[in-house]
Amino acid sequence: MANDMLIILFRHGRAVSKEEAGSDEERWLTKRGRCEVEAVARLLPVKPPTVYTSPLRRARETAEVIAAVHGSSVRLHPGLAPGADLGALKSVEELRDGVVFVGHNPDLEEMIEALTGGRVRLAAGTAAGIEVDENLAEGRLVFLIPPSVATRVHPCEEA
Amino acid sequence: MANDMLIILFRHGRAVSKEEAGSDEERWLTKRGRCEVEAVARLLPVKPPTVYTSPLRRARETAEVIAAVHGSSVRLHPGLAPGADLGALKSVEELRDGVVFVGHNPDLEEMIEALTGGRVRLAAGTAAGIEVDENLAEGRLVFLIPPSVATRVHPCEEA
Repeated sequence: MANDMLIILFRHGRAVSKEEAGSDEERWLTKRGRCEVEAVARLLPVKPPTVYTSPLRRARETAEVIAAVHGSSVRLHPGLAPGADLGALKSVEELRDGVVFVGHNPDLEEMIEALTGGRVRLAAGTAAGIEVDENLAEGRLVFLIPPSVATRVHPCEEA
Repeated sequence: MANDMLIILFRHGRAVSKEEAGSDEERWLTKRGRCEVEAVARLLPVKPPTVYTSPLRRARETAEVIAAVHGSSVRLHPGLAPGADLGALKSVEELRDGVVFVGHNPDLEEMIEALTGGRVRLAAGTAAGIEVDENLAEGRLVFLIPPSVATRVHPCEEA
């Protein structure tokens, strides 16, 4: 594909339950969730210039951890809230190589299937790198890093 | 899916040219190719019991590196030679969780597409973990680890 670009879809990390947080919007990352996101972020083969995030707290916190590892800027993107589809990616004004989108399941798995044709399992805190054409019409998966892989080298405490 | 099992398709590492080796069968891993395969093998989230390999030298050497990292046994599998398809995986007598198949492109990318529906880019030395049903009829990709990711934590010299 000409003008290929790498975009990264990143599912937020493990978060406390809705009951503990008081609402779905306010669920925050657990200590382990935060550690796992950092472990995965450290394995990204590119430095993301920008991390776009769903406005929900567990996604914002995930974006902040990724941004802290790589010195990226974070931008709230209401289009990435639960229920998002490829339109959320296409609505970003300046898509650049290595941008990250932090969002939710099943939305992200469905976007990956829409782009690559493929069924993937996106555990909480997993990053999927996709080589796409400039119109985000189709792509190929180039990496898929779940916490189970990243914590082989950057261990996190249980629970 | 009931009775899910994880299988790992592993593309052999970077190898010298056919000209340097004298034949395609005898192409051996470069120093960097060997280092990259070891880096990827160290990130596998499971210990492979068995590593099945294409009989070509670059695949056998790749299998030996993986087996050395995890203490796995290595078995030659002529069905994994160039031109292989899913039949090569199905012909293995005892499929067990975590088994690795070392083979060639485009065969492996095509097998992944046949199992998951998805287009992936499998650089030399990349491992793809797929959760499959017991009949190897369909699956979901759970990890995809290229050397560009693994060498973030286990660096290899250039060239």
